[in-house]
Amino acid sequence: MPQVLGHNYIGGQRSAAGTVILHSIDASTGEALPHGFYQATAEEVDAAANAAAAAYPAYRALSAQRRAQFLEAVADELDALDDEFIALVCRETALPTARIQGERKRTSGQMRLFAEVLRRGDFYGARIDRALPERQPLPRPDLRQYRIGLGPVAVFGASNFPLAFSTAGGDTAAALAAGCPVVFKAHSGHMATAERVADAIVRAAQASGMPAGVFNMIFGGGVGEALVKHPAIQAVGFTGSLKGGRALCDMAAARPQPIPVFAEMSSINPVIVLPQALQARAQTIARDLTASVVQGCGQFCTNPGLVIGIRSPQFAAFTEQVARLIGDQPAQTMLNAGTLGSYGKGVQKLLAHPGIEHLAGAPQAGNQARPQLFKADARLLVEGDEVLQEEVFGPTTVFVEVADQAQLNAALHGLRGQLTATLIGEPADFVQFGELTALLEQKVGRILLNGYPTGVEVCDAMVHGGPYPATSDARGTSVGTLAIERFLRPVCFQNYPDNLLPDALKNANPLRIQRLVDGRPSRDSL
Amino acid sequence: MPQVLGHNYIGGQRSAAGTVILHSIDASTGEALPHGFYQATAEEVDAAANAAAAAYPAYRALSAQRRAQFLEAVADELDALDDEFIALVCRETALPTARIQGERKRTSGQMRLFAEVLRRGDFYGARIDRALPERQPLPRPDLRQYRIGLGPVAVFGASNFPLAFSTAGGDTAAALAAGCPVVFKAHSGHMATAERVADAIVRAAQASGMPAGVFNMIFGGGVGEALVKHPAIQAVGFTGSLKGGRALCDMAAARPQPIPVFAEMSSINPVIVLPQALQARAQTIARDLTASVVQGCGQFCTNPGLVIGIRSPQFAAFTEQVARLIGDQPAQTMLNAGTLGSYGKGVQKLLAHPGIEHLAGAPQAGNQARPQLFKADARLLVEGDEVLQEEVFGPTTVFVEVADQAQLNAALHGLRGQLTATLIGEPADFVQFGELTALLEQKVGRILLNGYPTGVEVCDAMVHGGPYPATSDARGTSVGTLAIERFLRPVCFQNYPDNLLPDALKNANPLRIQRLVDGRPSRDSL
Repeated sequence: MPQVLGHNYIGGQRSAAGTVILHSIDASTGEALPHGFYQATAEEVDAAANAAAAAYPAYRALSAQRRAQFLEAVADELDALDDEFIALVCRETALPTARIQGERKRTSGQMRLFAEVLRRGDFYGARIDRALPERQPLPRPDLRQYRIGLGPVAVFGASNFPLAFSTAGGDTAAALAAGCPVVFKAHSGHMATAERVADAIVRAAQASGMPAGVFNMIFGGGVGEALVKHPAIQAVGFTGSLKGGRALCDMAAARPQPIPVFAEMSSINPVIVLPQALQARAQTIARDLTASVVQGCGQFCTNPGLVIGIRSPQFAAFTEQVARLIGDQPAQTMLNAGTLGSYGKGVQKLLAHPGIEHLAGAPQAGNQARPQLFKADARLLVEGDEVLQEEVFGPTTVFVEVADQAQLNAALHGLRGQLTATLIGEPADFVQFGELTALLEQKVGRILLNGYPTGVEVCDAMVHGGPYPATSDARGTSVGTLAIERFLRPVCFQNYPDNLLPDALKNANPLRIQRLVDGRPSRDSL
Repeated sequence: MPQVLGHNYIGGQRSAAGTVILHSIDASTGEALPHGFYQATAEEVDAAANAAAAAYPAYRALSAQRRAQFLEAVADELDALDDEFIALVCRETALPTARIQGERKRTSGQMRLFAEVLRRGDFYGARIDRALPERQPLPRPDLRQYRIGLGPVAVFGASNFPLAFSTAGGDTAAALAAGCPVVFKAHSGHMATAERVADAIVRAAQASGMPAGVFNMIFGGGVGEALVKHPAIQAVGFTGSLKGGRALCDMAAARPQPIPVFAEMSSINPVIVLPQALQARAQTIARDLTASVVQGCGQFCTNPGLVIGIRSPQFAAFTEQVARLIGDQPAQTMLNAGTLGSYGKGVQKLLAHPGIEHLAGAPQAGNQARPQLFKADARLLVEGDEVLQEEVFGPTTVFVEVADQAQLNAALHGLRGQLTATLIGEPADFVQFGELTALLEQKVGRILLNGYPTGVEVCDAMVHGGPYPATSDARGTSVGTLAIERFLRPVCFQNYPDNLLPDALKNANPLRIQRLVDGRPSRDSL
C-alpha cells in the first residue's frame, strides 16, 4: 500500500507545518492506526483557501469538456484503487467490504454523471434575448445569460459515507463540475481513506492538466471554522449533525460577506403504514421495514426513525411483529466511538421519556449498537415534542399509533422538515388518504411510495434535501445532478459582440446546447 | 379618486387595530398628504403572515394556468388605474408623470411576462428518471422531480420604484408566480400609492377566485422585523440600503429556522472608458454618461457611481468635458427628505476626503439634489478604501484615472461585488483589454458593452443581481424571469403511480412542457 503521509494538500503540494498529530482509529477494535495526520495550522488553512482562489480563474475558464475529462479521470483513479484501499476504508469505518465496494462504484459513477451534465450543457442555463432595435418607446439591447461557478467551495465530509459523501463525494463532484475549486476538510473518522482518495484526485488533476489548487485538503479538529470564515471561500457543503451544520451556517451568515451553506443535517424520515397495506401484506412490510431500520447499523441520513399507523388490531399485530424482528437483529459495530456514544445517549433519552414505551431490543451496552424499537404517544407528535423531532443516529425507530385520519394529519403537520417521507399503501389507501401527498410535499424533499428511504439513487431527478432542519436550504439537493446548481450564479452580457461572448452564448451555438432564445428552447444557431 | 383608507390588508380584509397613524408626504413640498395609515400592530403582522400561510396550500395547488390568469388580471387592473393614480404617485415621489406612466407599463408587463413563464412551464424544472427494474446489482426505482413554491414570502418595496419594485413589483410577481402568497411591507415613502396598487391586486385576486390570503400588505415603521421573524414566512425579497438589507439577512439567519433573503442593496456600477473609444467619440460618451448619471436624479441602483479611465490627454479632456456638462445639470427633487439628507451626507464625505477632488457641481443646499462630479486618487480603489466602495444614492459620480492597464486591473480587483460593470470601447480596445470580461464576470451580475447601466430590461436573460454587497445572494436576480427560481424548491416522487403524480410529471405530459427524461430534454408523453 502507498505510504500514508498525513500531510495537508495545498495547491498541489503536501504541507505539515503543524505540531498537532491526529491518528485514525480501527473502528472495530478502537486501536489507533499507525498513520499520523498533521492538523492544519491557521497558516495552512489560509494557504489552502488561497490556493483554491488562485486556481479559480484558470479552472473556471476551462471548457466544460475539459472539466468533464477531469471528473472522469478522478472516477478512473477511484475505480483503480486496490483491495488494500477497500480494506483500509473498512478498518477505519467498520463498514463491510461489499458496502465499500458498492460505495466506491457509486462515487466514481457520481463523478461520471456530473461529466455527462457538463457535456449536456443545461447547467449553463443559457438564455438569449436578442436585440429589438425597432421597439417603441425604447429599443431592446441584446441580452445573454449563462451561469458560472461561485468560487472556491469548502466541503465537509460525512462520517457515514467515507467515499460517496466525503473527499471525492457528491459535494466535491458538484463543486468541481460547476467550475469551483474545492478545499475539503477531511473527516476525523477516516483520514487515511481521505488521503488515498485525495491522492487519486491529485493524480487525476495532474494527468488532465488542471491548475494545482483545484483540489485541496486539510486535516484537523477545529480547522473548519477558519475555513468557513476565510474570505476566499464562497460557499460551503456539509453533511453531518444539526448542531455542526447550524454552527457553520451561523458563522457563514456572520461573515463580512455572508456566503451560502448547504448543510444536510437531521431527518427522522417518517414512514406511514396505511390500513389496506397492513391487511394485504403486513409480514412483508415488517420484514422490509426492519431491514431498512438496521441496514448499515442505521447509520443513514434517510434511516426511517418514525413509523406511523392508525390504531387497529392489524397495526397492533404489525407492531408486535416488528418488535420480534428488531429483537432478533444482531448488534453491529458503529462508525466510531463518538457515534456509539451518541446512539447510547439518544436511546437513553427515549427510554427516559414518560410518553415513550420500549418495545424491543437488548439493553444498550458494550462496544456495539443494539437495535431498539420504541412506541410513542401520538400526542408527542401532535404537540411537536422535541424528543420525537430529533434524529437518533443508529438502528432504532419509534412507532406512533394515531387514533384516526384526522390525528394522522395533525401529527404530520407537527413534523419539522425531513429529507424523506414514505407511504406504504394499497390503491384504496391512496384514495382514502389522498391529501397526504400535498401535505408531505410541504414537509420533505422526497416522497416514496411502497419503498424504503434508505438507498438514495444518484440521478437527475433525485432530491436529497428538504426543509429545515433536514437541510439549511430547501432549495438544494446534495445528491443527484441538480446539486450543481447550488454552486452556480448567473451573469448577463448586454450588447456584447459575438466574438467576445462565451461559447455557450455565441450565435453559432458551437457547444450545440439547448438555450432559451427569445422565450423558446432552441439548439439552433442564430 | 377612490378613498384611501390606510388600513392594513390581511387575508382579504382591511384592519386598523393600531393607534400609530403615519402620513405620506408630498415629496416636492414636504407637506403631509391627507391620508392616514395605521401602523400594523404585532397582532396584525402575525395575522397577515398567518393569512398567507393559510392561503399557501390552496394557492400552490392551483394550476400554473390559473396563477397566470391571476397575474394577468393584476396587470389589467394596473393598466386600468386612472390619471389621478398617476398624479398621486408623482406627488408622493416627485417622479415625473412620463416616468410613472412608463413604470406602470413595466410593472404590468412584468406580471404578464411571469404569466408566460407559468405557461411555458420550464419553472417546474421537471425531471424524470424512469425505473430500471432489470438493473444490476439493484433495480432503479422510478424517480420524478418538479419544483414547488417555498411558502409565504415577505416583500419589502423600494423607495425609488414605487411601482416596479414595490407592491406589485418584481419580487411580488416572482413570488406569486412561484405559488407563494405574499406579505408586502409598504414603503413609508409612497403608502397611498401602495394602497391603490394593493386594491388592484385584491380586485384581481377576487375576480380570479384566488384564496383570500394570497396577498397581504402592512403599513408601518419597524413592522418588518416581526414579519421576517414570523415562523410562517419562508423567504424574503428586499430592495434598499446595504444597512437595511443586511439587518434583514442577519435576522433571517438567526431564526430558529433560517430562511433565505434576497436583498438587492448597494452598487456603484463602474464604467470603464477605454482609450480608442475616447479617441473616436469622447463627446458622445460624455453626453450619454452625464445623462445616465443624472437620470431620475441618480436614484437608480444601477446609477454609474464610478468612471475609470487610463491617464492620457484624451481622458483629461474627457473629464473636463463631463465636468462642464455636470455643472450645467439642474438640481432635482429627490424621493423624500431622507434620501436628500443621505445624498448630502454622501457628498460631504467625498468632499472631506483628502484623496478626492471636487470637479463640478454647485454646493449642495436647499431642498433639491445638485449633480456633482469628483475625481479620486487611483490608490483609493487599489487599496479598497471604503469611501469609493459605498454607493452615494443620487446624481453624482467619481472619476478615477489609473496609470496604465496593470493599475486598471488592480483597481478592478479591489472592487466589491456590483450589479453592473460597463465597458466603453472600440473593437481595438477589446483586443487590448481582452482580460477585462473574465475579471468583471467575477465581480458583477451584468456586463454592458457600449451602453449605460441605468435601464434594466425585464426579460429572460436579465440579471439584476451580483456578488455581495450588490445583493445578499449572487445566485438570484430580482429583475427578469429567472427571479422566480429564488422562491422554488425541488420535490422528488419515488415509485409514484401515474394518477397520484402532479400533472407536470404524469406520463402523458398533459401540460405539454419540456422535461428532462432519462437525461434528455423531451416534450413526449411516456
